[in-house]
Amino acid sequence: MADLDQVLAEIRRGTDEILLESDLLEKLKKGRPLRIKLGADPTAPDIHLGHTVILNKLRLFQELGHEVIFLIGDFTGMVGDPSGKNSTRPPLTREQVLANAETYKEQVYKILDPAKTRIEFNSSWLEPLGAAGMIRLASQQTVARMMERDDFKKRYASGQSIAIHEFMYPLLQGYDSVALKADVELGGTDQKFNLLMGRELQKAEGQKPQAVIMMPLLEGLDGVKKMSKSAHNYIGVSEPANEMFGKIMSISDELMWRYFELLSFRPLAEIEQFKQDIANGANPRDTKISLAKEIIARFHDAAAAESAHQAFIDRFQKGAIPDDIPEVELAAGEGLAIANLLKDADLVGSTSDALRMIKQGAVKMDGEKIDDSRMTLSAGTVAVFQVGKRKFAKVTLV
Amino acid sequence: MADLDQVLAEIRRGTDEILLESDLLEKLKKGRPLRIKLGADPTAPDIHLGHTVILNKLRLFQELGHEVIFLIGDFTGMVGDPSGKNSTRPPLTREQVLANAETYKEQVYKILDPAKTRIEFNSSWLEPLGAAGMIRLASQQTVARMMERDDFKKRYASGQSIAIHEFMYPLLQGYDSVALKADVELGGTDQKFNLLMGRELQKAEGQKPQAVIMMPLLEGLDGVKKMSKSAHNYIGVSEPANEMFGKIMSISDELMWRYFELLSFRPLAEIEQFKQDIANGANPRDTKISLAKEIIARFHDAAAAESAHQAFIDRFQKGAIPDDIPEVELAAGEGLAIANLLKDADLVGSTSDALRMIKQGAVKMDGEKIDDSRMTLSAGTVAVFQVGKRKFAKVTLV
Repeated sequence: MADLDQVLAEIRRGTDEILLESDLLEKLKKGRPLRIKLGADPTAPDIHLGHTVILNKLRLFQELGHEVIFLIGDFTGMVGDPSGKNSTRPPLTREQVLANAETYKEQVYKILDPAKTRIEFNSSWLEPLGAAGMIRLASQQTVARMMERDDFKKRYASGQSIAIHEFMYPLLQGYDSVALKADVELGGTDQKFNLLMGRELQKAEGQKPQAVIMMPLLEGLDGVKKMSKSAHNYIGVSEPANEMFGKIMSISDELMWRYFELLSFRPLAEIEQFKQDIANGANPRDTKISLAKEIIARFHDAAAAESAHQAFIDRFQKGAIPDDIPEVELAAGEGLAIANLLKDADLVGSTSDALRMIKQGAVKMDGEKIDDSRMTLSAGTVAVFQVGKRKFAKVTLV
Repeated sequence: MADLDQVLAEIRRGTDEILLESDLLEKLKKGRPLRIKLGADPTAPDIHLGHTVILNKLRLFQELGHEVIFLIGDFTGMVGDPSGKNSTRPPLTREQVLANAETYKEQVYKILDPAKTRIEFNSSWLEPLGAAGMIRLASQQTVARMMERDDFKKRYASGQSIAIHEFMYPLLQGYDSVALKADVELGGTDQKFNLLMGRELQKAEGQKPQAVIMMPLLEGLDGVKKMSKSAHNYIGVSEPANEMFGKIMSISDELMWRYFELLSFRPLAEIEQFKQDIANGANPRDTKISLAKEIIARFHDAAAAESAHQAFIDRFQKGAIPDDIPEVELAAGEGLAIANLLKDADLVGSTSDALRMIKQGAVKMDGEKIDDSRMTLSAGTVAVFQVGKRKFAKVTLV
């Protein structure tokens, strides 16, 4: 990837916005390893594929020879939410921060190269600023500038309270860039204001401002909502290979291309070739399989990817699941009993029918026979249910 | 002053507002020495009578057996104005702060009893708060609450910038009250918002909120503008006794009562008696003399007061200055030559007349012969000029 145009195309891939691309280009031309910053919340991490979109971009920079700085925001983590309004953000102890950092490492090193990753903690430069340093930092921006941030503007206008320390957090994040002399900072599109604050503070310190790369939030399995735990539409990076395989195979063809763009490490040219092949009659299912195997190989290994593929074939392709099976979305409530699920999915006429069929060993979930007639399933379940030889339904519990 | 009603009347004397008087009363009833706080700017102090209005109230509390805490705001003084916009507030070194504190002491101990005065520096509790403590402090108030302060509201509405650290200063001042467990804080009426911040932070810490006593800004010699150096209408506490005497004798009878209220230590009953005496025909000039002597005795000593009085008699009363001499206000510009002054004050027909009269020894300033015909006078000069036996004018240079 020596050619700068090609490099830029890969960097641009999937990004939402780059500010300023001219700054980025200038830095890339320097020929020295750039410092690529990503700030991470120090609360207990549990990463799903949505989080990996940014990590993948960091990995690209590592492949290009740059240094990734994975910055754990332990300073604010240890302060917690001092207003006490957000009970989900209790102050963390230093031990908790370090333990969470280890958990982070385990997960992000599935994508990042540890040899080209520097882990930093922002307490190491924010604490020494002291009380007077905080006052000086606060003096660097105005109230009016802070009010330009969308959420502040809206909350102020609607009479919702903004605690004064909330004005400090963008400044702290910006100061991290000063302390690290960051060349590039990555973040979600929702971080735009804070990312730009880094540029402003760097300029005030006489540094060249960092280029800012904003990545979109990944859509979940439904292709509509953003991937999140609460929307039950996510793939966790620690999920078993077979589950990952099934979930990826369940996405739409359209979403598949989005996942290729944001989750695959294949060069753009290869992906272009896939599209052409399909236009020429290739089966999109095979392309989806290659995506599933790539992702499973990343978080497990190549053998696991292979056997997940084999298990999938055994369950579905050999079991001759029709191409078009009905898809049903059911409310899980506190948990849906299997008999009710089968009835609600129109696979049986009544719950007593359902119980009888289970007893006879004629009900399968993702190709595996169900033995427990009192089984209940919870929200987030996505599986193909089969009753007898001919009745199929793909059920999503929400 | 054991009687609480009488005590309250003296505390109320001259105040602009007390918040809440019920809190103050409750504290006074406790029968223990209260902690009375006054915050002082650590920049080089040069005190005039206007500044002593609050000091006099502190002295009253000392007489009532309470402890005065003279708080030097060295923390913010050492930060300076970090925005760099206010070049008159350069950051002070610790040595400068200590030197200024000594200068303060010399001046305020002319009024306060050193044995009942505690000098504190707020850096001793603000610095240890550290960076994290500043964030926690900032979390205790909202942006909307700060915007209630008049000057912030106006500046925000008119598009003038407010640096974020300006929101921190009221919190720091309030936290000082928490750290000191202040029972009462005194301040000017312009400090109302910051004084109330102390009450709010104390309540948040589970302390009984301090009572807040706001004193008015003293009118200057002209009786109209607030006393200040820039308005050339002040009496400095270190001025020579004769100058003090002359300046106090120059004020109007109406202003004299205001000065009695805010500057005299005489009990209210005595002042009431003066008023009655004058209503019964006593000469207000004699009452003014007693005010002048009281104030000079405070900042010099009783002997100096006596001799200033004597000098005044020698110059004016024995010199038979007419009761109604013309008063003239002249622009001093970069300094007004004596010859021009005499001409502009209509004491001579021309500057050459003036020079001739000076040569003849016929020109006096405050009763003293002028020898130097090239003398120039600058803004702030207030003096009676006399040419020959009959021509007088009281000249104020602005």
